[in-house]
Amino acid sequence: MASSSSLTISQALVGRTRTHNGSTTTHSDHLALPGFSLSTLAGRGIKLSSPSLCPAGSRKRVNSRSAVRAAAVETLDKTETSLVEKSINTIRFLAIDAVEKANSGHPGLPMGCAPMGHILYDEVMKYNPKNPYWFNRDRFVLSAGHGCMLQYALLHLAGYDSVKEEDLKTFRQWGSKTPGHPENFETPGVEVTTGPLGQGIANAVGLALAEKNLAARFNKPDCEIVDHYTYVILGDGCQMEGIANEACSLAGHWGLGKLIAFYDDNHISIDGDTEIAFTESVDTRFEGLGWHVIWVKNGNTGYDDIRAAIEEAKAVKDKPTLIKVTTTIGYGSPNKANSYSVHGSALGAKEVDATRKNLGWPYEPFHVPEDVKKHWSRHVPEGAALEAEWNAKFAEYEKKYKEESAELKTLISGELPTGWDKALPTYTPESAADATRNLSQQCLNALAKVLPGLLGGSADLASSNMTLLKMFGDFQKDTPEERNVRFGVREHGMGAICNGIALHSPGLIPYCATFFVFTDYMRAAIRISALCEAGVIYVMTHDSIGLGEDGPTHQPIEHLASFRAMPNILMLRPADGNETAGAYKVAVLNRKRPSILALSRQKLPQLPGTSIEGVEKGGYIISDNSSGNKPDVILIGTGSELEIAAKAADELRKEGKAVRVVSFVSWELFDEQSDAYKESVLPAAVSARVSIEAGSTFGWEKIVGSKGKAIGIDRFGASAPAGRIYKEFGITAEAVIAAAKAVC
Amino acid sequence: MASSSSLTISQALVGRTRTHNGSTTTHSDHLALPGFSLSTLAGRGIKLSSPSLCPAGSRKRVNSRSAVRAAAVETLDKTETSLVEKSINTIRFLAIDAVEKANSGHPGLPMGCAPMGHILYDEVMKYNPKNPYWFNRDRFVLSAGHGCMLQYALLHLAGYDSVKEEDLKTFRQWGSKTPGHPENFETPGVEVTTGPLGQGIANAVGLALAEKNLAARFNKPDCEIVDHYTYVILGDGCQMEGIANEACSLAGHWGLGKLIAFYDDNHISIDGDTEIAFTESVDTRFEGLGWHVIWVKNGNTGYDDIRAAIEEAKAVKDKPTLIKVTTTIGYGSPNKANSYSVHGSALGAKEVDATRKNLGWPYEPFHVPEDVKKHWSRHVPEGAALEAEWNAKFAEYEKKYKEESAELKTLISGELPTGWDKALPTYTPESAADATRNLSQQCLNALAKVLPGLLGGSADLASSNMTLLKMFGDFQKDTPEERNVRFGVREHGMGAICNGIALHSPGLIPYCATFFVFTDYMRAAIRISALCEAGVIYVMTHDSIGLGEDGPTHQPIEHLASFRAMPNILMLRPADGNETAGAYKVAVLNRKRPSILALSRQKLPQLPGTSIEGVEKGGYIISDNSSGNKPDVILIGTGSELEIAAKAADELRKEGKAVRVVSFVSWELFDEQSDAYKESVLPAAVSARVSIEAGSTFGWEKIVGSKGKAIGIDRFGASAPAGRIYKEFGITAEAVIAAAKAVC
Repeated sequence: MASSSSLTISQALVGRTRTHNGSTTTHSDHLALPGFSLSTLAGRGIKLSSPSLCPAGSRKRVNSRSAVRAAAVETLDKTETSLVEKSINTIRFLAIDAVEKANSGHPGLPMGCAPMGHILYDEVMKYNPKNPYWFNRDRFVLSAGHGCMLQYALLHLAGYDSVKEEDLKTFRQWGSKTPGHPENFETPGVEVTTGPLGQGIANAVGLALAEKNLAARFNKPDCEIVDHYTYVILGDGCQMEGIANEACSLAGHWGLGKLIAFYDDNHISIDGDTEIAFTESVDTRFEGLGWHVIWVKNGNTGYDDIRAAIEEAKAVKDKPTLIKVTTTIGYGSPNKANSYSVHGSALGAKEVDATRKNLGWPYEPFHVPEDVKKHWSRHVPEGAALEAEWNAKFAEYEKKYKEESAELKTLISGELPTGWDKALPTYTPESAADATRNLSQQCLNALAKVLPGLLGGSADLASSNMTLLKMFGDFQKDTPEERNVRFGVREHGMGAICNGIALHSPGLIPYCATFFVFTDYMRAAIRISALCEAGVIYVMTHDSIGLGEDGPTHQPIEHLASFRAMPNILMLRPADGNETAGAYKVAVLNRKRPSILALSRQKLPQLPGTSIEGVEKGGYIISDNSSGNKPDVILIGTGSELEIAAKAADELRKEGKAVRVVSFVSWELFDEQSDAYKESVLPAAVSARVSIEAGSTFGWEKIVGSKGKAIGIDRFGASAPAGRIYKEFGITAEAVIAAAKAVC
Repeated sequence: MASSSSLTISQALVGRTRTHNGSTTTHSDHLALPGFSLSTLAGRGIKLSSPSLCPAGSRKRVNSRSAVRAAAVETLDKTETSLVEKSINTIRFLAIDAVEKANSGHPGLPMGCAPMGHILYDEVMKYNPKNPYWFNRDRFVLSAGHGCMLQYALLHLAGYDSVKEEDLKTFRQWGSKTPGHPENFETPGVEVTTGPLGQGIANAVGLALAEKNLAARFNKPDCEIVDHYTYVILGDGCQMEGIANEACSLAGHWGLGKLIAFYDDNHISIDGDTEIAFTESVDTRFEGLGWHVIWVKNGNTGYDDIRAAIEEAKAVKDKPTLIKVTTTIGYGSPNKANSYSVHGSALGAKEVDATRKNLGWPYEPFHVPEDVKKHWSRHVPEGAALEAEWNAKFAEYEKKYKEESAELKTLISGELPTGWDKALPTYTPESAADATRNLSQQCLNALAKVLPGLLGGSADLASSNMTLLKMFGDFQKDTPEERNVRFGVREHGMGAICNGIALHSPGLIPYCATFFVFTDYMRAAIRISALCEAGVIYVMTHDSIGLGEDGPTHQPIEHLASFRAMPNILMLRPADGNETAGAYKVAVLNRKRPSILALSRQKLPQLPGTSIEGVEKGGYIISDNSSGNKPDVILIGTGSELEIAAKAADELRKEGKAVRVVSFVSWELFDEQSDAYKESVLPAAVSARVSIEAGSTFGWEKIVGSKGKAIGIDRFGASAPAGRIYKEFGITAEAVIAAAKAVC
């Protein structure tokens, strides 16, 4: 790598000269303030007065737009090039200034990636700044989320209301719309929540999957109503994360041709040059993953190369494309560019000044030059026009395709079909005993008939997790209209892909599955589901020592507790058929809160007293022979141990005790009930309480109190038949009875 | 893929004919019972009477052994080939029979991988069955842990005491030595704990790293005292997991030439043909990762190809090798081979019979034919001889290299140097305020001087986690003797690599670091640390909202609770310098229990009353103005909030209250104290208790009781300067004071 001092010279040069089509412009050029040209407008391919909105063969529109784009590139003159430079520098300085004011943040990436950011938002992407949720927009994901000032600057220039100048000035401050990493729930225009590395690229795979699925289901030969790209910027950090490899392997397998990822290849990570830990050939790896790979060698000033790469990527329809763009982190900073020091700290006043000089930037902090402002101002009307055009197209689509359009509308709005929950199965105590994983499959298949947005699958355990939708085939490269997704053994990628699906359209309801213990592999993605309000349904089977012989590596112990402690997620552990149906009802209704269903491998009886309505309250009484809300003892169970609590109650009642049995299927839902309801289930006066759950007792003191007793497992499991482990670990009715007698 | 019926025919053929050097043997051949030949013995390269134990240029020994091996391959006659077949079928049927008896388990992999298993354990690997812990043994990791019957069968044949016939017959039963997945803590001879996919290959990278580091530190030009290979078998499932890509990228980067991985390429995963989810080119990906790649096209009967591949792999010194071995899952089963049905269930009596017929196996279940038994019986004396030879070599090494040999001995034994803990720094209230992450670095650097086994690093956050050992350089391909490991942004791989390092030798003490919130990325590896008794030290900084502006994606909330709920792990949250030193003391002493240190980004004062000894008790009083063990209120804090508790106490005392302040640095350690001690800190009679911790309150009821108050954070964090978030979230002395008054 070149030394920092030699770079200073090249950086200094860059601010003063640049080459376009062989010509060299001088410093003074890029202070000229031309208006935006019509050719640039045409470059975005806007056809406001399209004579036929749903013409036969409208697929070609992409091509014709591409052609126009290419023409625009060719006709760009010096003035336009200069304006592009100026816009790019505006992006750089908005990032520099915001980080400087916050004295916190990451200026390096925005400075290096400003060219690709500019080209994407100004020249390539379809979006409507005044409606960030317009369905058919191109999606953009900044997987290298620490560089969020890049995206905030772009949203600001493009005219999004979420990022006004004031928001840039309150970057990373309490209550601002511009948090330290991109957060979809804070900033309209941000599609997903990134920052934890590798999540964004996997989210993008989910967004592209959703597009491919919906396009296959709803597009017609004479009308392409779903048609957008998904763009990503990811850096070296994302590339090192295993989740990225998982998701990208799937993207290649699925042939997600409309996924275009920019790999910001800047050779710098926090610890220094990537040479110290990252010397693999990313290109070769991605070729192995089935991607089309393009290398833009000069990402700092090779604008046409970036443009050409995007064109090439669009032309490759059957593979996702990785555009490796070699950039200089902190481009423009004379003393800090190309070093880790520019990655995650403010430049400092002195270096900001030096960078201003170096790039020829005479403006005050946060200033957007008038010509740049004017240039970008077209995106508001253009975006409105794009959406209007699409709306008109949809109106025509609606006339021709009533059923499809009605269905698509619900996917766009997120409105659940009336009476959908009536499809859920119910059970009586006479119904056959069954594993809740099987009962879950009954629910999934019942819901698939009424919920057009339900799709998902398992991490290579479909036949164990029982997650196949029988009425559908597999979502595959050549059958993208199907709804069973085969994730392979890629739990982490699976979770993050589902986050992307969920955030693509409010009506999409992704579910995904593995053994409950392997939530450990995907916990980072699950946490982001909770944070970013993605209503993913996690179908987690084999939820305890009840799985038996596979042993402690496969037996969850602390997992229920670990998710009960996580904010904004529902941890549900149903005990039988009605409770499984109830868990699905809750999970489907909670579109902004993910749900985890912990399900048994082993058969469980259908218990008297369980109900969907009970589950909705989180905790409820399934049987009681006490009166006056004064039982002698309250037995509390969840999932497969509710049966044990019920059995113990039967025995205790034979001995004359007044026993209440409470199913505690979701702590979070119970917490949300009124005090009166809670008192009706767990009266404060009754301290004789025994809980039983085949998992850690951690946290149960809250429910059973200091005078109660929590029966559980505070060690790792064991390899043996399930019945034997239950007995050896004391998860038995006898133990409950003994504890009940001890606390009464 | 060929259909199952066509395969049945080829399978059937295989049992009857096989080709070696162009000749065809008939069915009757492989029932012949020859003794083992001396050429086979020589094939393992045993030189019992080596004239010089530490000869100059002894590195060449590997090569000379290789040459002998190759010669042995060439001289193998039909009888020997037949015996190899018979041994391989013995392995297959031990697996088939054990799974059948347990009616649970995974016969498919052992049936397909028996040839490579046989060649490794019978012809290639150096080990001593009667001392599974012999330091210089070759390490073997079954990353596809579900196929554990392969390893149990091999350990049984090789003469390990841990797997007797009785153990095979109690496969997957309560208390057996043969659990459902390989567990090092149950079965001597098993190096690591696998089953959760991808962990094993990453463990193996750690084992190979340890060998490379120790070899570089201790080998001398005239004496190669550390010299072994690490072999792995991994399957499609492991290959799909992101952790495998992370670890293999590092293995390529580090040039771990003595790591040889067999990729069992059988085209079948649980959900069916790998075509449904795994169509990437693994070969190309591994070439991109910097591995040497070999393809053995016929892993079922191409024994010589497997042998030749191992030779080739050994000849490549600067790269790890992936040997892709194409096999048939469930090889030999006429109706189930090459299908997912043979992956994870017993074959069933009928198919077992059919397989016996197909492979010409007339024996009773669990029978090891006498000639096979006799053939394998040499491994006990040979293994003893190998160890004796090495011991003699070590004795000579000891004479020449006193210091090095003494150090190496402690690494082998795990004995800590006398007085090592005196190196830990201590602090007084007058010492400068500092972040515990910085204080952690002081401890690490102090310990590095006295603990030769301490090595580790960060996932690209060394300068944030403060984990660099200043007296050492980077462990890299060409500087493997150094002890700073650069993991790149690969948290999951990092954790599993550290498990491998820890399990290589008892005296190795690996530490690894990232932001605390990113334990979510590596939780599966951390859990296996806890399960497999690997005393890894997890240095987790930026442990709360105190990290400030990076926002909720980076701010841990539920993480403390989630690890407190996990068995066999120490969750430590020190408050200042003395407590950080105490946390390190505890972490170093706990060699069979991993520790997580949650450390602050922000500066914290050195508090009066904190101590190393206090930390060792988990919870202890740092200040108290009460008498008779009857404070008016007990304030309990951890980490950065202990300061807040202390401040609140000062205020309350001014108002005349008798206030005790308790540091609750580790719940697990406190739990292990005597009842008397616990009562002396948290007297049962005092229910007025307030806890404060900048994390989830989940679990705190156990400590503060139903009449106490837990101050914490039960929502996601926010992006803002730390002080502002603390205030907005009510993590303040004022809140503690108000709560204390409310509960008194």
